[in-house]
Amino acid sequence: MHAAPLAAVHQPDIDSERVIRIERDILAKNNDTARQNRARLAATGTLALNLMSSPGSGKTTLLVRAIEDLKAKFPIAVIEGDQQTDNDAERIRATGVRAVQINTGRGCHLEAGMVGAALDDLKTEPGGLLFIENVGNLVCPAGFDLGEAHKVVVLSVTEGEDKPLKYPDMFAVADLLLLNKADLLPHLQFDVGRCLAAALTVNPHLQTLVVSAETGEGMAAFYAWIEARASLSRAAAVAQA
Amino acid sequence: MHAAPLAAVHQPDIDSERVIRIERDILAKNNDTARQNRARLAATGTLALNLMSSPGSGKTTLLVRAIEDLKAKFPIAVIEGDQQTDNDAERIRATGVRAVQINTGRGCHLEAGMVGAALDDLKTEPGGLLFIENVGNLVCPAGFDLGEAHKVVVLSVTEGEDKPLKYPDMFAVADLLLLNKADLLPHLQFDVGRCLAAALTVNPHLQTLVVSAETGEGMAAFYAWIEARASLSRAAAVAQA
Repeated sequence: MHAAPLAAVHQPDIDSERVIRIERDILAKNNDTARQNRARLAATGTLALNLMSSPGSGKTTLLVRAIEDLKAKFPIAVIEGDQQTDNDAERIRATGVRAVQINTGRGCHLEAGMVGAALDDLKTEPGGLLFIENVGNLVCPAGFDLGEAHKVVVLSVTEGEDKPLKYPDMFAVADLLLLNKADLLPHLQFDVGRCLAAALTVNPHLQTLVVSAETGEGMAAFYAWIEARASLSRAAAVAQA
Repeated sequence: MHAAPLAAVHQPDIDSERVIRIERDILAKNNDTARQNRARLAATGTLALNLMSSPGSGKTTLLVRAIEDLKAKFPIAVIEGDQQTDNDAERIRATGVRAVQINTGRGCHLEAGMVGAALDDLKTEPGGLLFIENVGNLVCPAGFDLGEAHKVVVLSVTEGEDKPLKYPDMFAVADLLLLNKADLLPHLQFDVGRCLAAALTVNPHLQTLVVSAETGEGMAAFYAWIEARASLSRAAAVAQA
């Protein structure tokens, strides 16, 4: 399944009502499966984060750094989404953690069913972290719940300050914005305040952190954000057991 | 009233039970008055922000800049809290907005009753902003609800990265942290990420923005944060009327 129906609604030569109905059916089925994933992750106290961004924002570099810095504290597993290749899963596996690559082919986003199948393979350890790196795309992944605890959007400072206004859905559904590649700021005309203003206009409750996966700047704050939530996930699983 | 009771509980030569009872009575009375202030502000759709920090973090400079940048959009009023002098109210009045100075004398924080009395004088205009600049103190103001919509803590980068861990109550009750004086970062050994990590450890839901009231850096994001909340306050007042 690729995300065409969401766009196709605006194509005048298509039976709009039928497209909207199909779209609803697809989303309802996805949401059911996402709920199953969420229950499964909750049972083992696994904190799942769904990382989304444009291609080239530095998601995989950020993930590799986070894994290196956190793997002594948590069992970590990764689900990698890309249309083609398993390059990213290979980069992740080089850190020593388990990674499953999903190739979506024509599909432009992960779906809950794909994540459920990957969970069968991964067998996440109790009290761990699951990073889900979505397909590089600032539009379609926003609409699909995967069963994650939180959606994290990564935007890089090379992409322009107005992206949150141009792609509001993604910023509206995210809990955390990581503004990445901060090490490049001295070489760019990029107003961090204006960019974050755009993001907060779309989502007034968004948490925001300025980071550089390259130099490590700001990453400690991201780890503290993760650790506070991982503690809650573990405590909830213990209470449930 | 100054905040001694909160500390006095730990002094062994004082009747602890009696001190705790007095403290509870004082806080209960304060909370009642705060509720009245909150209802009063809600009726006029006024967004009230309680700004708190150590002395010298740049609260008044930040406020003067915010007022200059926002006064064309909103009617603005200010309540200034200081132990002595009306220097800060004078600085605020120079921007053309109304300001009431409260001198707390021995008191180390504002209380809801003081804000209620100031509201009688100010007569805030519908749909406006009310900035309450609390007494410079990173401890006592945290415990006293004034009827504000949000608590905003200002910390400057000259104060040290570990302040959120040393003064956790303030960061735990705040909705937004403004990390101020960012223009000084090139001259300091201050790790923004480590500081925000400390703040997020204390309060995982805290929103954080890095700003410079001096240069204006990052202030646009603070204004977007304010504007989103001011819209909600106005809409709620209209719905209520």
